[in-house]
Amino acid sequence: MATQTESPDPSMAALNPIVTPLMTDMYQISMAYAYWCQGRHEMPATFDLFFRKNPFKGGHTVFAGLEECLNFISNFKFSKSDISYIQSLIPYASDDFLLYLAELDCSDITIYAVKDGSIAFPRLPLIRVEGPLAICQLIETPLLTLTNYSSLVATNASRFKLAAPGKSLLEFGLRRAQGPDGGMTASKYCYLGGFDGTSHVLAGKKFGIPVKGTIAHSFICSYSSLDEIKDCKIKCADKTSVDFVQLVLKWRKDLDGDKTHDGELAAFISYAQARADGFLALIDTYNTLKSGNINFIACTLALDECGYKSVGVRLDSGDLSALSKGVRAYWKEIATKYKKSWIAKMVIFASDGINENKLKKFAEIGHEMDGFGIGTNLVTCQAQPALGCVYKLVEIDKSPCIKLSNSFAKISLPSKKDTYRFYGQDGKPVCDVLLESSEKAPQAKEVFKAFSPFTMPNEQKEIDICPVKVEPLLKCCWGKDEGKEASLLIKMPELKERRENCLKGLQAFSPDYATVDDPQVYPTYVSDKLYHTLHKLWVKAKI
Amino acid sequence: MATQTESPDPSMAALNPIVTPLMTDMYQISMAYAYWCQGRHEMPATFDLFFRKNPFKGGHTVFAGLEECLNFISNFKFSKSDISYIQSLIPYASDDFLLYLAELDCSDITIYAVKDGSIAFPRLPLIRVEGPLAICQLIETPLLTLTNYSSLVATNASRFKLAAPGKSLLEFGLRRAQGPDGGMTASKYCYLGGFDGTSHVLAGKKFGIPVKGTIAHSFICSYSSLDEIKDCKIKCADKTSVDFVQLVLKWRKDLDGDKTHDGELAAFISYAQARADGFLALIDTYNTLKSGNINFIACTLALDECGYKSVGVRLDSGDLSALSKGVRAYWKEIATKYKKSWIAKMVIFASDGINENKLKKFAEIGHEMDGFGIGTNLVTCQAQPALGCVYKLVEIDKSPCIKLSNSFAKISLPSKKDTYRFYGQDGKPVCDVLLESSEKAPQAKEVFKAFSPFTMPNEQKEIDICPVKVEPLLKCCWGKDEGKEASLLIKMPELKERRENCLKGLQAFSPDYATVDDPQVYPTYVSDKLYHTLHKLWVKAKI
Repeated sequence: MATQTESPDPSMAALNPIVTPLMTDMYQISMAYAYWCQGRHEMPATFDLFFRKNPFKGGHTVFAGLEECLNFISNFKFSKSDISYIQSLIPYASDDFLLYLAELDCSDITIYAVKDGSIAFPRLPLIRVEGPLAICQLIETPLLTLTNYSSLVATNASRFKLAAPGKSLLEFGLRRAQGPDGGMTASKYCYLGGFDGTSHVLAGKKFGIPVKGTIAHSFICSYSSLDEIKDCKIKCADKTSVDFVQLVLKWRKDLDGDKTHDGELAAFISYAQARADGFLALIDTYNTLKSGNINFIACTLALDECGYKSVGVRLDSGDLSALSKGVRAYWKEIATKYKKSWIAKMVIFASDGINENKLKKFAEIGHEMDGFGIGTNLVTCQAQPALGCVYKLVEIDKSPCIKLSNSFAKISLPSKKDTYRFYGQDGKPVCDVLLESSEKAPQAKEVFKAFSPFTMPNEQKEIDICPVKVEPLLKCCWGKDEGKEASLLIKMPELKERRENCLKGLQAFSPDYATVDDPQVYPTYVSDKLYHTLHKLWVKAKI
Repeated sequence: MATQTESPDPSMAALNPIVTPLMTDMYQISMAYAYWCQGRHEMPATFDLFFRKNPFKGGHTVFAGLEECLNFISNFKFSKSDISYIQSLIPYASDDFLLYLAELDCSDITIYAVKDGSIAFPRLPLIRVEGPLAICQLIETPLLTLTNYSSLVATNASRFKLAAPGKSLLEFGLRRAQGPDGGMTASKYCYLGGFDGTSHVLAGKKFGIPVKGTIAHSFICSYSSLDEIKDCKIKCADKTSVDFVQLVLKWRKDLDGDKTHDGELAAFISYAQARADGFLALIDTYNTLKSGNINFIACTLALDECGYKSVGVRLDSGDLSALSKGVRAYWKEIATKYKKSWIAKMVIFASDGINENKLKKFAEIGHEMDGFGIGTNLVTCQAQPALGCVYKLVEIDKSPCIKLSNSFAKISLPSKKDTYRFYGQDGKPVCDVLLESSEKAPQAKEVFKAFSPFTMPNEQKEIDICPVKVEPLLKCCWGKDEGKEASLLIKMPELKERRENCLKGLQAFSPDYATVDDPQVYPTYVSDKLYHTLHKLWVKAKI
């Protein structure tokens, strides 16, 4: 199995060229124009980007996509042809407005965000955008597009990892991804969420992800007999050369495997000749136990004589649990018979429509698989293919504002806010709290009065929490630092480091929250002040 | 509502830069190397790209993505840095193989495909690739990535169109799409599948799709009182100027609407000032019937005095069917009261998690909506987020081949094949048939002996069909024409034309097939010869 970790190619770290200010919804431009007409376009505003519900009926979400958001912010500029196109869409707009758009960039906005790859919960701002109303509005759609799917697929990957602890997980989804960039985003953020590698070569090159892959059924099917092997030789580890076909046939006879498929054996021989020191065979084309596994072992014993150790097999159809047991049982028998204990320990890798439920089922009923290649269900997030991140105005002209709804779940929390994670005695997070940014930050070892935001005032009970440690979650990522030009204010860690942080971050939580099976709801509270701002506005806004 | 159709920007028609030969699965490269080692890389091969089941439990599929596939084929070339990266992945490979890859292009392959936007059915080859084995193998993943999602989302769009006949459908999905390119692909192919426009500005610019959009809740929420309107004037159609705020307030009083939300009214006034000749208001922020609709009518009557006709409203929450009836009833009352019949006929547009089932439900229970904006469910294809297109070797070195499976559905049809659509007396398609390419094409008004491929020989009955018209479905799109260099052999029609063909194509089928409700299975048959090739290989391949 080919594998490689390489530093990302810097020439390819650039922005996806379609991620431009025009990658937005038309109404953002209509609104910017209406703000501009009323001279409101520079009114100070704050927007929160957040989601309302963890995806997959789960207990947690992995936030991802910040790197692309900051790239977008850093490069925000309408091109001349963009401006001409906008003019064609709103021919009634004045030239001054188009001039305003042509000169617009993100130098007047400030971006706060939680760490890329961190564990997040509903209603907490993932990104807080502050600045002039119109530019804040114009970046809404790209920020959502760049975080919604990234976070969704990273969360999905982290759930697969929880469902198959200790197993090697590879992302195989490119061909079923929602478009080429869907495939790139999936490969990148499945790795962030805890996957161990990808089959996707470009993602490997661009993001430094380990790349894996062997052969497909078409390779096996392309051979129908042993006569098709033109060159029968193999170069042994000691540089001598032997007739590999004869060697394999001798072993097949010894294994009493004369009924195995000749075309399959020819394909295995051919692949082993090309990849003698990393032979991993796909064994389910004709019959996994009666043909594929025997042909594989014949090659393995022949390779062993040549000084090479096979890696293992891939199963891609059938009852994977039972087949893996059958394969391993045969390997153990062979290991004993020929006194080669390593044969029993080769790798069994499986693919074929694997999803979270199948992984859980395998763990329940027992199996002999060491790793899984997962495509469609992982990358398209079949169980829930969209995360509902939204972007809501929470403060305008220094006053808090709110979007009402009939359902509590859809009411947004007003005010410019900061969030803090509280830790308990055992070092584990116990809750997240939201305060208005104007409030004093909560302190470790001091009692904090917390409120559940959506209980009514007459039912409300204050909860007193005394955290052992308090961690502010929102960090300033983009803005003006001490009078300088607006710029990036954080250094994004390498993807590999973010992956490790993500895995550690999830492990830091109690297994009551960090689980795929009926997770408990992780508590989030608001401060006394925020609670009262919310309920005051709520009453005021009711019709 | 801003709207514009413009010719696509030719500078942007170029390939998505991530669609390169490296956008593939690692095993394609491993296999190419193994083929190369055995001197099999130039063995003639034929692969079919097809799907096994219509998506969404439906009766049809819209094939899409051919334009991107042909772009990819035309530009296939590994870059120097790609080759270096591949070398790092397979350090054991010889330099000659890397040289071979570096020089490789698609000049030796021939591509046949069905028309982009045509109606397709399970098992029919959508694309047939002929050429040297290794290059055919290397392009598998990109061809699948470029057709799977495009076809899925176009099919989804065509189903929404069937579920809401005569309604205006707009794609609003960018923010929830699976990555930026997922968003671009969705906008493009929802339009192909029959949608009328998109909110996505870049897709409008790039593909010439009509772009639409008005305002969001954040625009409404950014106003809290009428005092915030700095400039109260409006320029009337006759170029005179009046105090628009006073005019609206006069009308609101007349409507007895003093309890409507002032911030909302301020937002409407502000937007109407910016977009007097195309005013469409979002009316559900506070209370659709008690506030939004009344504020909208106050603005509409004021705009009317200024010489402008409002377009209508958008509903984005609540019981859309009931609210649309309430809105329309009030408009009718106003139309009668003020003797302005056009008011009753303004547009009611709705969004808010609309899916195919909701559209069907609306049609059942009755409503007053004229159009729908559809996002998440449309673009992520929530009901089934992946189409299972596969790419199978069907002929190698001039011999047919087959991939066996325990399930009939997964057995591939062998041989290089051509497909024909048979039409009946009424001009409607009656079935599709597959023949080996070496066979004589079926002729109109001649009896054709058709077979169901997967019934066993002892149960098999020949079906005699005499088509009124026979249409060959696979067209040669790429290859060498009379000894010239390989090149594109078709001119891809404009997207708009393909959209019209797609709509007409679906209408050409009997409503028994072209429906979202329990469609009948459209029949596909094979020729006598193909039937016997299949069953001979099947018996031979069994272990």
